[in-house]
Amino acid sequence: MSKLINEPNEVVADFLRGLAATHLDLRIDAVNRLVLRRAGCRQGKVALVSGGGSGHEPLHCGFVGTGMLDAACIGEVFTSPTPNHVLMAIQAVDAGAGVLLIVKNYAGDQMNFEIAADRAGRAGIDVRTITIDDDVAGSSSHLAGRRGIGLTVIAEKILGSAAEEGLTLSELFDLGQALRGRGRSMGIGMSSCVHPATGVPTFEIGADEIEIGIGIHGERGWRRAKAGSAAEIASLLVDSILADLQPPPASSFIVLVNGMGGTPLIELYVVAGEVSCLLGERGHVVVRYLVGSYITSLEMAGCSLTLLQSDAVLLRHWDAPVATPALRWGTAA
Amino acid sequence: MSKLINEPNEVVADFLRGLAATHLDLRIDAVNRLVLRRAGCRQGKVALVSGGGSGHEPLHCGFVGTGMLDAACIGEVFTSPTPNHVLMAIQAVDAGAGVLLIVKNYAGDQMNFEIAADRAGRAGIDVRTITIDDDVAGSSSHLAGRRGIGLTVIAEKILGSAAEEGLTLSELFDLGQALRGRGRSMGIGMSSCVHPATGVPTFEIGADEIEIGIGIHGERGWRRAKAGSAAEIASLLVDSILADLQPPPASSFIVLVNGMGGTPLIELYVVAGEVSCLLGERGHVVVRYLVGSYITSLEMAGCSLTLLQSDAVLLRHWDAPVATPALRWGTAA
Repeated sequence: MSKLINEPNEVVADFLRGLAATHLDLRIDAVNRLVLRRAGCRQGKVALVSGGGSGHEPLHCGFVGTGMLDAACIGEVFTSPTPNHVLMAIQAVDAGAGVLLIVKNYAGDQMNFEIAADRAGRAGIDVRTITIDDDVAGSSSHLAGRRGIGLTVIAEKILGSAAEEGLTLSELFDLGQALRGRGRSMGIGMSSCVHPATGVPTFEIGADEIEIGIGIHGERGWRRAKAGSAAEIASLLVDSILADLQPPPASSFIVLVNGMGGTPLIELYVVAGEVSCLLGERGHVVVRYLVGSYITSLEMAGCSLTLLQSDAVLLRHWDAPVATPALRWGTAA
Repeated sequence: MSKLINEPNEVVADFLRGLAATHLDLRIDAVNRLVLRRAGCRQGKVALVSGGGSGHEPLHCGFVGTGMLDAACIGEVFTSPTPNHVLMAIQAVDAGAGVLLIVKNYAGDQMNFEIAADRAGRAGIDVRTITIDDDVAGSSSHLAGRRGIGLTVIAEKILGSAAEEGLTLSELFDLGQALRGRGRSMGIGMSSCVHPATGVPTFEIGADEIEIGIGIHGERGWRRAKAGSAAEIASLLVDSILADLQPPPASSFIVLVNGMGGTPLIELYVVAGEVSCLLGERGHVVVRYLVGSYITSLEMAGCSLTLLQSDAVLLRHWDAPVATPALRWGTAA
């Protein structure tokens, strides 16, 4: 299958050009691959910065705007942005109250955001980092720890609202750590994606097979299995997450049923229906759903499930107005 | 590639179950496959009903809510709903001011909605129908006329706003006809989709080929070509549409860059950037963009472009608040 791109090495630049043309409330620094709110960060508000490789759209660029991120800095497809670019993002948005970084747990991202945070700190900017490591398929025995996947979307929404509300950097860090302890994810893939630079699938997979425990970089999962029904797949995801999270009885969840990029919405809703039943059967309550493709792996088919054990504060921040290219509700400007 | 479904013949029922679980402001009649606003249609407001086969999600069910449709009635995948079900939808939403049907131009949909409209009329309900036939790839020599594709999304948004504002059925019909004359679309496909009932691709296509002029039912396009760059494909779509539409110089457009279901967002933005350049080069102005997968053909890869020659009234209705599962902005309840 061919791709809707021009030169493979120009995909990110062309993507940013499209984003700049279509979202006039964003300011795009195409040279340094930064996406910022045109209005800038309000003086005295903690600024939120996230980022990582491209190929996961709408994450992260699609979440820049009122109620979510102040800046996203992105690298090439599946490649971390450089420390220099992360530092530029931090400096561009700091409005005197410090900067919170939301970083998925991948070696390259962790290293580059940490270097940038150190340099920003030496330049007098308060920086704290929330590491997202929600993937229960990455067992804790894995050296690098768990990967960051779907919880990133929810964290950017909730922490974005809290920052708008005026929480300090330290308070935001605490909220982020609490949220991190209450959210888990897991995904399955039904096809490989094709990196634009190579033009070939990352792995081969049979028509009746799935990869269980995929990440978001076209990598294979933790094991391969015969494809089951949506009900069986939903059950695997729900039970793997609950076994790890060990929520109290009758917990309230915010649920993200996320498409990996190549799965149609009709199928995601089929999964959402199964997840709803399963959580009900296990005595839990779902208070909010988000169903769609929000953190993707190019055109990979498949889905991931994220469960966040909610409370009144998290729910209030989830419901708060947001105005970004990919999430938009309420009366946010 | 396997699908995230249970039984192939239960896909639509399972989809509706998921929709019911996740969107509590919708009322789902699963037996008759109707999706309605839970709050019902405000007394004295013209009700808007659309529908058609499933497999095009979020169209149409994802567009039910304040500012858009009052009801969607859907059939099996790629299959029209029956006249009975369309009639039920009409009767469920009529609030004394009549019902406007928005129907894509396919033989089955046209026939079944027309039968339902006739029967509703005999039962004393005023019904008018806007036929959407925007696909310039369906040449006018084709007996059935042009197919209805991407303009459907824009029509449902604009007419939905106008209905909320209190236009009469006759005024809405006139607005719909005007809009229909000002909007055109065309699409290309890079992969086939797989109907859940057959489990096999609708057509075979080489890795370096595209189908030009696809519809939304997995059908082949009007011709096959070597895959070009995003710039070449955007140019083909823009120029085919402009040649047909013949807009005055310096026209203002509302633009939908739509994914067919299996194309990642990063690629749609690459196309949007090219479309933006091309329209600028041709002396036109884009006043609004919508970029994403809004009228799909299951997991087909590819995109369609819709251009609506806008004016102050159409733009105001486009910008008006909307609160549906798939389109949501402004302060709509």
